[in-house]
Amino acid sequence: MTNTELLALFKKKSVAIDAVMTEDLAIIQSPLLAKIIHHAIFQGGKRIRPLLTLLAASLVGPPPADTPRLAISFEYLHAASLLHDDVIDHAILRRGAETANTIWGMEPVILAGDYLHAHAMALASEVGGSTAMALIGRATGAMVESEFLQMHNAHEILISEENYFQVLRGKTAALIAAACEAGIAHNQGSAEQRLALRTYGTNLGLAFQIVDDLLDYLGDPAKTGKAVGNDFQEGKMTLPLIKALKRADAKDREMLTSLLQATPQERSRQLALAHTIMEKYQGFSLARAQAESLLGEALAGLAIFGEAPAKESLTGLAHYVLSRDK
Amino acid sequence: MTNTELLALFKKKSVAIDAVMTEDLAIIQSPLLAKIIHHAIFQGGKRIRPLLTLLAASLVGPPPADTPRLAISFEYLHAASLLHDDVIDHAILRRGAETANTIWGMEPVILAGDYLHAHAMALASEVGGSTAMALIGRATGAMVESEFLQMHNAHEILISEENYFQVLRGKTAALIAAACEAGIAHNQGSAEQRLALRTYGTNLGLAFQIVDDLLDYLGDPAKTGKAVGNDFQEGKMTLPLIKALKRADAKDREMLTSLLQATPQERSRQLALAHTIMEKYQGFSLARAQAESLLGEALAGLAIFGEAPAKESLTGLAHYVLSRDK
Repeated sequence: MTNTELLALFKKKSVAIDAVMTEDLAIIQSPLLAKIIHHAIFQGGKRIRPLLTLLAASLVGPPPADTPRLAISFEYLHAASLLHDDVIDHAILRRGAETANTIWGMEPVILAGDYLHAHAMALASEVGGSTAMALIGRATGAMVESEFLQMHNAHEILISEENYFQVLRGKTAALIAAACEAGIAHNQGSAEQRLALRTYGTNLGLAFQIVDDLLDYLGDPAKTGKAVGNDFQEGKMTLPLIKALKRADAKDREMLTSLLQATPQERSRQLALAHTIMEKYQGFSLARAQAESLLGEALAGLAIFGEAPAKESLTGLAHYVLSRDK
Repeated sequence: MTNTELLALFKKKSVAIDAVMTEDLAIIQSPLLAKIIHHAIFQGGKRIRPLLTLLAASLVGPPPADTPRLAISFEYLHAASLLHDDVIDHAILRRGAETANTIWGMEPVILAGDYLHAHAMALASEVGGSTAMALIGRATGAMVESEFLQMHNAHEILISEENYFQVLRGKTAALIAAACEAGIAHNQGSAEQRLALRTYGTNLGLAFQIVDDLLDYLGDPAKTGKAVGNDFQEGKMTLPLIKALKRADAKDREMLTSLLQATPQERSRQLALAHTIMEKYQGFSLARAQAESLLGEALAGLAIFGEAPAKESLTGLAHYVLSRDK
């Protein structure tokens, strides 16, 4: 399955998911609440989480008819967390459009996030029972814990690789893993099958973020739409930098460390130097190798499933994550 | 059961509830997250919601051993909503102590509210299954919807009695009703028994707020700790005022309406006049009669239960709500 075929398939399926959400959200009574939630959900987004729930459920046969309603609860949880993140960060834009807090202010947006969050959990419980709820409870707990870990890390200059992955696991991977595992659990998947999907989701989320880290240094701004070296300028320790620092000799290590304590302007000026040092110690290739190895493990786990279109899509998605250039 | 006996009993039971929460919250890993949540929960509060869950469950025999864990989820939901309310209102003090957002700022407090909210729902699902979750989903949805209705009302000068009760039902009564109904449902209560507890909880919450409205005009500041006429000064339409406006003649109605459009200072100066008009049209006695009638209905519903200490406590609580002077 080529990337183009995969994206066309996902686009088609996401239209169906959007229809399920539109119908489900009709229960909202307040016009303002409905407006904010529609803005949060229908202002872009690739529906990756609900698609994963549907694909995972389809690995072991036709999924129960109510699976799409379980699936959308993961999109809701994702959207709810973005609403609160944007309030917390005072973010003005997301995906090129004004954020909900820019348009409506903090007050109704915090409440709309709460609504979506509660609605998602009630829906997941109704459709997926205590199994889905246990998965979601763990994932949402991990999401908040990782935000606190990240706040704590913000006071440190150097972040360990272990710390980096711990944040990432909560921030990105936990909800994706729950979306995958809830899907197969909803179609009576065995413990072994559930573990395979949990690993797939976790590793897909981690690899996606590592590739993001790489694109930040190596991507083509014309494609990514972002300036090169953003993370470094902000003093953000991502995996290529962590890998390089670990192997650098005392002098290069000292150079990178002092840059991390310098001003953003200084880091911006010294980006080429930092890039050279990171390359010298294989920061980029080691990070890419780790993303490849995580996805290799994810795909190896799918070997227990027979051939199925859903398996092809999940495999295609793993390859897409690695090959994407934007 | 006298008020003093009731309060002593509640005090004793709330110590047990606190112990269950302390043990349950030990799973939190981030020290800062744990600090904020402990501050939100153990900085006062009468544990009314979990007490109601326990009492409701005890009406039909000894409750299952895990009922206290279901009960605390309602205290968590309450505390989570207060955390977000205080962020939204930029509140500095609550119960005489600094709010969490005053101490730690907005960012971690929004996240701590999210954590508590998600944890409460996961816990309720684990212990109370889909029955408890359906009740909580409805209640949390109603809570947010009522906040939006209240925001909408803030642009109106006059609020109808229907509108007043609609806000109150979502804001206060919905969660209390869910706490009561979840308790008896957890002990295999019948549909009839569940309805009785839902009515009890709803009406108790409504009556509690009406008495609050009355104390604002008629209370002794030395006991309530609040200045008389606060609500009127803020231009807040509460039940005594709504009742009076409905019966006032054109001239008095015009007088009250123009005061509601005046400045807070002007309303403060004219408080005695407003009070006289409200008294003339029985605003206070009609509001009190409505609180009495709501509690009467609540207690009449309990007639289907045999004598039990829990029934005595629920009856005592209804009387306490009506007779409290602070």
